[in-house]
Order: sequence, then C-alpha cells, then structure tokens
Amino acid sequence: MNTFGENIKITVFGQSHAEAIGVTIDGLPSGTEIDGQYVQRLLDLRAPGRSDVSTKRKEPDKVEFISGVIDGKTCGTSVCAVIKNTDMHSKDYSNLLHKPRPSHADYPAMVKYGENYDIRGGGQFSGRLTAPICIAGAVALGILEKKGVKIASHIYSVGSVSDTPFDTLSDEEWLMEKLCGMDFAVIDEKKGEEMRGVIKSAAENLDSVGGVIECKITGLEAGTGSPMFDGLENVISRAVFGVPAVKGIEFGAGFEGAKMYGSEFNDAYYFDGSGKVRTKTNNAGGICGGMATGMPVIFRAAIKPTPSIARAQETVDLEKGENTVLEIKGRHDPCIVPRANAVIRAAAAIAVLDAIYSE
Amino acid sequence: MNTFGENIKITVFGQSHAEAIGVTIDGLPSGTEIDGQYVQRLLDLRAPGRSDVSTKRKEPDKVEFISGVIDGKTCGTSVCAVIKNTDMHSKDYSNLLHKPRPSHADYPAMVKYGENYDIRGGGQFSGRLTAPICIAGAVALGILEKKGVKIASHIYSVGSVSDTPFDTLSDEEWLMEKLCGMDFAVIDEKKGEEMRGVIKSAAENLDSVGGVIECKITGLEAGTGSPMFDGLENVISRAVFGVPAVKGIEFGAGFEGAKMYGSEFNDAYYFDGSGKVRTKTNNAGGICGGMATGMPVIFRAAIKPTPSIARAQETVDLEKGENTVLEIKGRHDPCIVPRANAVIRAAAAIAVLDAIYSE
Amino acid sequence: MNTFGENIKITVFGQSHAEAIGVTIDGLPSGTEIDGQYVQRLLDLRAPGRSDVSTKRKEPDKVEFISGVIDGKTCGTSVCAVIKNTDMHSKDYSNLLHKPRPSHADYPAMVKYGENYDIRGGGQFSGRLTAPICIAGAVALGILEKKGVKIASHIYSVGSVSDTPFDTLSDEEWLMEKLCGMDFAVIDEKKGEEMRGVIKSAAENLDSVGGVIECKITGLEAGTGSPMFDGLENVISRAVFGVPAVKGIEFGAGFEGAKMYGSEFNDAYYFDGSGKVRTKTNNAGGICGGMATGMPVIFRAAIKPTPSIARAQETVDLEKGENTVLEIKGRHDPCIVPRANAVIRAAAAIAVLDAIYSE
Amino acid sequence: MNTFGENIKITVFGQSHAEAIGVTIDGLPSGTEIDGQYVQRLLDLRAPGRSDVSTKRKEPDKVEFISGVIDGKTCGTSVCAVIKNTDMHSKDYSNLLHKPRPSHADYPAMVKYGENYDIRGGGQFSGRLTAPICIAGAVALGILEKKGVKIASHIYSVGSVSDTPFDTLSDEEWLMEKLCGMDFAVIDEKKGEEMRGVIKSAAENLDSVGGVIECKITGLEAGTGSPMFDGLENVISRAVFGVPAVKGIEFGAGFEGAKMYGSEFNDAYYFDGSGKVRTKTNNAGGICGGMATGMPVIFRAAIKPTPSIARAQETVDLEKGENTVLEIKGRHDPCIVPRANAVIRAAAAIAVLDAIYSE
Repeated sequence: MNTFGENIKITVFGQSHAEAIGVTIDGLPSGTEIDGQYVQRLLDLRAPGRSDVSTKRKEPDKVEFISGVIDGKTCGTSVCAVIKNTDMHSKDYSNLLHKPRPSHADYPAMVKYGENYDIRGGGQFSGRLTAPICIAGAVALGILEKKGVKIASHIYSVGSVSDTPFDTLSDEEWLMEKLCGMDFAVIDEKKGEEMRGVIKSAAENLDSVGGVIECKITGLEAGTGSPMFDGLENVISRAVFGVPAVKGIEFGAGFEGAKMYGSEFNDAYYFDGSGKVRTKTNNAGGICGGMATGMPVIFRAAIKPTPSIARAQETVDLEKGENTVLEIKGRHDPCIVPRANAVIRAAAAIAVLDAIYSE
Repeated sequence: MNTFGENIKITVFGQSHAEAIGVTIDGLPSGTEIDGQYVQRLLDLRAPGRSDVSTKRKEPDKVEFISGVIDGKTCGTSVCAVIKNTDMHSKDYSNLLHKPRPSHADYPAMVKYGENYDIRGGGQFSGRLTAPICIAGAVALGILEKKGVKIASHIYSVGSVSDTPFDTLSDEEWLMEKLCGMDFAVIDEKKGEEMRGVIKSAAENLDSVGGVIECKITGLEAGTGSPMFDGLENVISRAVFGVPAVKGIEFGAGFEGAKMYGSEFNDAYYFDGSGKVRTKTNNAGGICGGMATGMPVIFRAAIKPTPSIARAQETVDLEKGENTVLEIKGRHDPCIVPRANAVIRAAAAIAVLDAIYSE
Repeated sequence: MNTFGENIKITVFGQSHAEAIGVTIDGLPSGTEIDGQYVQRLLDLRAPGRSDVSTKRKEPDKVEFISGVIDGKTCGTSVCAVIKNTDMHSKDYSNLLHKPRPSHADYPAMVKYGENYDIRGGGQFSGRLTAPICIAGAVALGILEKKGVKIASHIYSVGSVSDTPFDTLSDEEWLMEKLCGMDFAVIDEKKGEEMRGVIKSAAENLDSVGGVIECKITGLEAGTGSPMFDGLENVISRAVFGVPAVKGIEFGAGFEGAKMYGSEFNDAYYFDGSGKVRTKTNNAGGICGGMATGMPVIFRAAIKPTPSIARAQETVDLEKGENTVLEIKGRHDPCIVPRANAVIRAAAAIAVLDAIYSE
Repeated sequence: MNTFGENIKITVFGQSHAEAIGVTIDGLPSGTEIDGQYVQRLLDLRAPGRSDVSTKRKEPDKVEFISGVIDGKTCGTSVCAVIKNTDMHSKDYSNLLHKPRPSHADYPAMVKYGENYDIRGGGQFSGRLTAPICIAGAVALGILEKKGVKIASHIYSVGSVSDTPFDTLSDEEWLMEKLCGMDFAVIDEKKGEEMRGVIKSAAENLDSVGGVIECKITGLEAGTGSPMFDGLENVISRAVFGVPAVKGIEFGAGFEGAKMYGSEFNDAYYFDGSGKVRTKTNNAGGICGGMATGMPVIFRAAIKPTPSIARAQETVDLEKGENTVLEIKGRHDPCIVPRANAVIRAAAAIAVLDAIYSE
C-alpha cells in the first residue's frame, strides 16, 4: 500500500520509468489554497544537479495539478498532481535484472514481485518517488503555515561532521525560514564547508556517505496528537520511514536520553512572563504521551549512505545461481542527505497535518 | 484513536483506574490457536514486583478472553480480552489534577481533555495500558511462531552499561528462546549485574534511569513488507512508539550507519552453502526498501528514564497560575526497561503480523 | 471485519454463546456524555419477550461500560461496553453442526470457518449481536440529539399490511418522539392491530413473516455527507446491511421513483416563509449527491421473514453427504420486525454520526 | 473521501471540467494483467452518443495508464489511470452558480463548498466521474474472470416496462456474456423496443425517465464475504450508491421478500447430482449472513430519472434570495439507465474484488 493518513489520504503512484509519477490527496477541505509555485520550489530543492556535491543529472520535475484544484483552491474532491517523466533512457536493464544491487530494494523486490518488478531505475523504490511526497508535503506545509505551524530542517551531520543543532527552547523563526530556502541547508556555514569536503572526498574515492537530518516543528498547540498508536511520534515516524534510506528516528534527547537519569531528563514546567506554560529543558522533543507539549518538536532522522557507488561490489547472480561482482554505472549523488532534507520536511508536514485534522 | 493495523485491527481500551482494560483483535483467521497460558506468561513478564529492581507493587493481571475464542481457537469473529482492574485505591488525585508531573502526559492531556481527563493513575496514558498490547502481542507471537517467525528482545543498555548485542548474521535460536523467558533479559549476565547496580543506585538516589531495548526477528521471508508507507520500518516504528517512554528507534546500523561510507555500509550478497542468498554484513538490519531481505531484522528502541521520581520537581499549578513544586508519592520502577522488554517484543509482533497478513 | 466507521471506529465483538458480547467505540471526543439509562432503554426495546407477538424467551441484557467513561462522560480513550451472556444453555448443538438451517448463515459459515464456527445459537451471526449495535447506536443517538439531529423509525409494513408512511416534508417531532418509546412502533394503531394479527396467524401456522422498517432523520444540515463512496446513502446502507435479515434499502421514492418521469420526481426548491430553502416534494429522501438537502432523510429497509420456523424444512447433512429434513426447536420470534425497529434506528445513528464527524 | 476498499484502495479523482479525471488503484498484486482494450470497451459502453436513445454529445474517453503497469501487468505499486478532458466548453456557468438544479447535487454542494464548488458540468458530482469507476471496475472484472467470477447486468425496467429477470438458479453463461457486449442490454429484445419507446416519448415531452438495473454475479465460492459490516451486501451497496442517481438496492427477493412468509422465503438446501450443495429457490439472492451461499448473487439498483430536463423548473436564486424558474440547456440523456448499466457492473466488481481479497 502506498497510502498514508487517516484524515487526509495520500496515495503516491508511479515508478522511476513510468510515464508519470504523482500523488492523490483525498480529504482536504474545499477552499484550501494550493500555491503551485510554492510546491514547485520545494520540488526544486529536492531536484538533483543544484549544487557542487550533487549528481549532474537533470530532472526538470514540473508539477501539474490535473484535478481537484480550481483557481488555486481545492474544490472539495481529491486532488491529483503528476510529474511527467521525460528522462527515460531506453538503457538496457536486463543486466541488473538478476544481480541485485547491495543495499538497494532490488533483492527483496525481485523475490516479492518476480519478473513483474519494474527494475528500471529502481521502479517504485526509486528515490524519484520522493518527488510526490514533496508535492503532498508542500501542500501540507502551505496549510500548516496558515495555522501558525512552521517546519524546518537542516543537515545535522554528514559522516562525522556535525552542524550546530536547533535550539530546542526557542522558535528561531528567522533561522527556520532561512534554512527552508537553502540548497545545502546548514546552520553553521563553516561546518557546511567541511561536510561538502567529506562528500567530495567520498565521491573521489568512488564512495558515498550518510548523514543525519534534524527537523523542528513550531506552533503546535499543546495537546495535538492522539494516544497510543496515533501519537505524533507514531505518525511522524511512519511517514519519515517512507523516505528511502532512513534507518532511524529519534525525538528530543532520543538515544542520548536513554543514558540519562530521570532527574536530568525530566523537563520542569514553569510559567513564562506571558503566562504561557513552558519547560526549562526539552528532552522530550516537544512530545509527551504522543501529544505536543507546546514546546518545539524536534526529531532527527538517520540517512544511510547512497547505496549506488561506483566501486565494484560483491553480489549474486540469481539466474545463474552464483556469486558475482557488480559495477553500477551512471551518475549518483555521493550523499543523498542535502536533497533528502526537503523530503524529510515534506514527510513531517504530511504527518503533522493528518494529526491536526484529527483534532 | 487507539486502533492499529490494516489487516488485523487492534483496538486497545481502558484507563489505569477503569473497571477493566483490554483489547479487541479483529481480522484473525478462524481456527487461529490462542493459548491463554502463553498470553498470561508474557503478561507476567511485564508485571511489576518480579525482581529486586522492580517496584514492589503487585498487579495480578489475569487475562480473560470474553469473546471470539472457543476451545482455544478463534471462531472467525473479533476477539475481546480483558483484564479487570482490582487495585484501584480510592486515593485522592485532586492534588495532581492541576499540577502536571514533568515528562508525563499530564500537561498535554489536561489541555486536550480538560476536566474530562481521567487523571487517576495516568488515565489512558498509564503504563498499565501496555498490558493489552502484551495480550495482542502474545496472540501475534503465537501465530508467528507457527509461521517460523521468532521475535526476541533484550536489555541492550541501562544508563551507560551495555549488554552484548545480538549477532545480526545468525539465528541464535537457543539465545532468543532463553531471553524470552527471562525477567531481566540480558545476554551477558555480568553486564546484567552491572545494570542492576545502576538501577539500585538510581533508586537509592530517589532517581530513575533509562535504557535501550534491542529486538531481533528471524524467519521473515525475503520480500515481506510493502513499499513506502507500509514498509516494515514504518509499521514497526508506528507500533513501537505506541509504548509510552519510547523516544527513538533505529534499524540495523541506525544512527551509527549515518556516519559510514557506502563501501562500509552496503551489505554484499552471496550464496551460502545451501543455496540461500545471504549478506556478509547486516547494516540494513534485515530491511531494504521496507521489505525483509531474509536476514535477521534488528532494531533498537530508546526508553527514557521513568518520569515518576521521588525527588521534588518544579512544575506549575494550572489552577493558581503559578510555579510550584511537586512531590510524587507511591512506588515506581526506578527503571522501566526490564519490564518494557516484553512490551517491545509484543508491539513488534503486532506490526509484523499485520505486515505478513498483507502479503 | 466487524469494524465500522472512518471517524468513529466501532468494533462489535462476541458470539451468541460467548462469555460476553459488546462493542468498542474509538474516536469519540472527550467529554461526550453517555447516559447509561438511555442506552439501556434502547436495548430494552430490542429485547425479546416484551409483547404478545414476541418470543417468551428472556434476555436480561444489562449493559456495562467497562472503560472510557468516567462520571458519565468519555475521557478521551476508546469506550468499551459489554453485556454478559447469562442464558447459555448447555444444549446439544452437535445435531445442527452438519445440517445448515435454511436462510441462516450456517451453510456459508460452515464452509468458511469449518469446524471452528461457533454454531451455538448462530455464533457471530446471531441476532444477539444486534445488541452491541444498539449500544453504539444509543451512544450515537445521544450525541446526535445534542446536535439537533433526531432519528425515529416505525414498522412500515408486516406482510402485506402497511402503516401510514412518514410525512417527508415536515419534522413531526411529537410523532418521532412517540415512536421512539413504543415496543410495537406504528403510526396508525389500527394497522398495528392488523399487523399483530398477521404475526399471530403466522405463528399459529408454525410460520414467520417479513416486513419493512421506515426510518426518518431530521435536523441534518444541508451539505452533510461526502461525495461518491462516503455519501449518506453509502454509509447508511453499509451500516443497515450490518443488521442480519435486511435484504434491501431505498431512499426517498426509491424503487417507485425508478418508475417516475423526471418532471414528477424532481424536487422543486423554494424559499419558505422563514428564508429557509426547502423542496416542494421529497422524492430524493433528503439526499442529493450523497449529501443532505436539509429536508428529512427517509429510508426503508426490507426485513426478511425470521428464518427459524417450527415446520420441518429440507436441508442437507454435510457429514453424511445426503439430503435430509430438519426441525428447529426453540422459541423464535415469528416476526423480527418489531424488535429490529430499534436496531435499524441504531445502525442509522452510527452511520450519521460518522458522517457528521467527517465534516 | 473518494476512496473505496479495505484490501484494494480505489481513489477516484477529478471534476467534470478538470484537466483530467481518473483513478488510483492501490493494493493489486504484482503481475496482475491489465488489458487496456478490455478497459476501453467497458468505457465505450458507458460513453454517450452510442444509441438512438442517448444524447448526441460525444466524449471520446480514452484511458491512459500512467503508472503501475508495465507490459500489460502490474509491477506491485499503485496503478494510476487518467482520462483527459477534451470537451471543456468555456460556457458561462455563472448563471447556474446561484440557481441549484432540482435533484442535482448543486444545492447541498453549494452549501457545503460555497464558492469553491466547481459548478462547471456538475463538478465532482458529474456523471462523468463514473468513467473512473468503469476503469477500476474493468480492471476488477478482468481479475475476477480469471478467478471464475462473472458479473453481468441488464436493464431490468424503464418506467413501467420490465425485462425478463435473470434466472436466479442457473449460471446462464451465454446470456451473461451476450449482455456484457450490448449497448442497450436487455434479455427480451421486444421489451427492449418498448423501453426505447418510453425513453423517446419522454425525450419528446422534454422529460426523462428512471429505471432499474439487475446485476448477477456467478462463481463466488460459498463463504466469500465477512460478517456484519463487511458482508457482501454491505460492500456492494456502499459501492453501488457511489453511482449518482442510485436510490435503492435490493438483494434476491428484496422488498417483495419482506411480504413473504418464512415457509415461502426460506431457500431449501439439497445436493445436486454432482454433489454440490444448492438451494431450490434463491430468495436470498445468493447471500446469507453477508456471505455467498454459492448460488448466483442477484441484486437490483433503482435509478432515478435524469434530473436534467428541458422543461422550466422551479428553484431558488440563492444570491437574490428569491424563488425563480430555471431552464437547463444542453444535451442530456432522457434516461441514464442504459449507460449506467456498465457502471453498476463496474461498481459491483470493485466491491466483490475487495471482498475476495479479504479472504
């Protein structure tokens, strides 16, 4: 199933080399504004070929809203948006068809779908399918902004180089806004330079490298979210693991918090000057019992290294039934983290909007 | 919503001080064996008062299957199981009603539900509600075992003391079975002793401590799981975050993997002696593209320190509108990790069964 | 699946001879008032043995809310209500086990569930399972009343004797209220007497008889309902066919309307004196495009004759593989319509509440 | 919500004058054959302008599968199919915007969506949206055929003229196949001529006329379907009421059955010569307890007269707040039944496939 959401239902469709990829969004209230240019800008941040550390491959992903929108507003029925695939090389994939690429979805997909798997470009498991997530996410971000909810994210780390983390206690609006417009979104530009160095060096070594993306959500009213299986952590994690390459997620102090004592971890409440309830620390990452506390929500997602590397790799030939060596051709991002940054934000937006609509 | 699952639908009900807590399980095939004693054993592992590092509080949680089961087998309709609450002290909670306990669900719950929030014992956010998760999980574990799928978990760490991790490449059946029967489930007993020391010392300091639980799932056929939003990582994480106190989850190399290069991270395929496809490493944690690779699935869940500690804590008095200090009475586990170990296994089982039923 | 609803999720559980039957209701806003006596009254209207045309069998169906309700209000988690089964005779059902009763669910249930089918009393297909529908329906009716939505129903016909139909243009509040309290709910008492005669005469002939129930819903705001698959007709029909014995449903002019010309059928709009838009006729039954028009919603449900009759009936012996004759013992209603009247109202209420919560 | 199904999820999108209309189908097993020509043929049966009793308006509805299908087979991800709208006149709809057409969805849609309602051509409530239902239905029909399940339907009545009904006891394969290819699908051609006469005469009178469609489903294994809310009657009725203009549905003897005695209605079981269990009558319409009995499933759907008629009709001017008279221009079918015949078959197929996939 490629469907997400209880209150809005998002169905992503397409494969890397299908005629088109896209998304239907069911359940948006009529009159919801959809700004095509805003959507396109988020798509552009995800697009390849925009920085010196990205693949040179170009994908002019132009979004078209083919139904559900009239004069920039939803009319009450489901919205469908598509991106036509233009760059479908008639490249020969028969080579790959029996030699699964390590750490790609190929092997389980071959077992699951057999000869029906559309191996071309990774089929439905291609990173290209994060473009429809961005479309739906941008629509959600637009709605959330009107409700006073802001979402920003940055490259928290690449390899062993870490950026300055978000401040968990304040809103940092200017910073959040700035990050949302950056191709290589970091808080500390110097650390950003170091990260680029790590990525370029990996590329030179015919290698790739992973990283972590940190995401911050402000403006959620205390109490947003549902108990047990539909808490904010549940729905955000479900959406974020929909982004290929994510291997972990943590909220607030996360795994570090598991080493702490209660007296350190517990976030003491106090009234601030304006009569608002706040916490002195935010180890909870803005979520208790699945519900927003009113403090910024903070999570981090671990992104594995790009699985496609130019080095020869050991794999199996499923047809011949023997071990073999595979070389993957083509232009691939040595680090997917800078482009995934926009996608994580989009996935978070989809989850948060669904949670808000359940209130 | 307290409902989980697409193919089986699990609805947990109850609050800490309701007449009963329980669960309905809809969608089980008729003729599914349900072994009440097996279910009770998992509940017992979760029960308090079983070890020298647990609260002395007793909760004789006896499960009753009140519908859907006849002669130990499902008859095709939804199963309902309940645990009657017996230990409901007529304690005065009016004290707590306006003073949210730090890092509990109290504050957002008070905002969300207002005076309707059943504050007694933490209401629907109480750790007691993990008992119904254990019931559903034990039912799922029984079904999975018959399908050759095994799930075990252990205390990976308490504070800064770590156990030996699972072997990610082999099945270790004997070890998995052993862990499933242990009250304080560790692989390395010496480390277990150290952990107990950390917990006792925290208790003496009127404090609590967090930890990490590692879970291993074997026997999943390659290809199990669905793309994008219903992959194994998506559904397992959604279920596991249903357990209060979980603040992070990572699969395989997880956050460590985000620091790696592709050439290190990628799991090379090979045919083993018996003609089975295996990987030489298992940084993927047995999951690629949301689907099982056929290697053991490994994940770790970060558990925050028990929020209830005996020390005085700063909080707010929502009625008086002023800052105040709160002392929490009662007997609480200084570390929830040993008891949560059974619950994480149960939550994983629910998610995996739902994924298998979607095949 | 025994689960209904998108915005509230209702899971019915139990079999005729299970320890208990009941229902969980997930998704109710916290603070929703639940009046146990109101619920009990609807259950009582459904109970057998209340009139001279009903079976003398007694089922003292007492509802208990075991979770989710505190001081008569929901506390934000799922509500669970149960009815304990008290009248479980240790009667021998082995006789029935291979001889499906005509027009009961036995035969398909035996094929579907095999030996796991809980044949005792009809298992999960028993009319007893309409009691949990009444519980959920009574909760829904209580909520709807507070929103100004009223639902009433009456016995439209028994055999060939018909009651006066509802007025489709006015609210008839006093009549609706009166019908809601009647054991044998008819508008025209004389016709009611005739109906009783038909039922008694059927009983004397060791036979049973069917009928039609008409239901009226007032107070729905124009626009309530969703397009296509979640329109009012879709969700009401899905719920109403959940009541065993229903074989047809029609809205407004229904099947008669299919014989009409557009110039007769079309409901002309006009402004009434108070500036409200109304229609001069109501052949649409208050629904256009799946949405309420603001006029009373009217539907009728066809109820088949009680399948259990005292006459010998032809059937098969599935064990012996031969044709045989079956005699059904026990006390059965010669006409289920009077008791089903409360259940149809309850089912409609569940559907309407779910539709309203989607707005 | 425009989404249908538990096991396959169908989301219809589009409005009459959107750039495109279409459907996504999520949950189809990989390797499912999709025959584009078969789909197109069903669409053609639904298309206007094909007979002497249909509107002369042409809609060259060409289906394109833009994702999920490769070499005529599904590849495991969701399928998206679209029909581009070509015939979008820049006609002025501002006239209609405040004058709801009687018995159309206009009035409740205006209240619900306000100025966001895409009134052009009826927006999302247009009969055009039955084309995507036909696409999904044709895909389902193709899958069902391979499973031995056949679905056919015919015009049971137009106005007061009735066709010969289906034989409820035999399969009539040749007849079912013949009907599936007919533009004006009737069993008795003479009655068909009479029906055409009624339709032409209505057209001459600037009027329209309703009718009934009967549908037959063979090859369902006994036991198919689920108890209570997901029985065959529940899911078929939910899907069929998704077709605009349907105002009633009945299974088997339906409303006539409600007049019968149990001794007449009950369908006696017997073993036929080949050892198969059959019933001597089929008043149940092949369904008991929501499950297939193995006999043909029979249902009838009541279709109201086309609401658009050329006569002047009374309505309101919502802007001016006064009563007014409306004349609807354009070419409309005087009877929608012949074209709806293919759509009812499609809707039934979607529901039946979803039920089969739940087994």
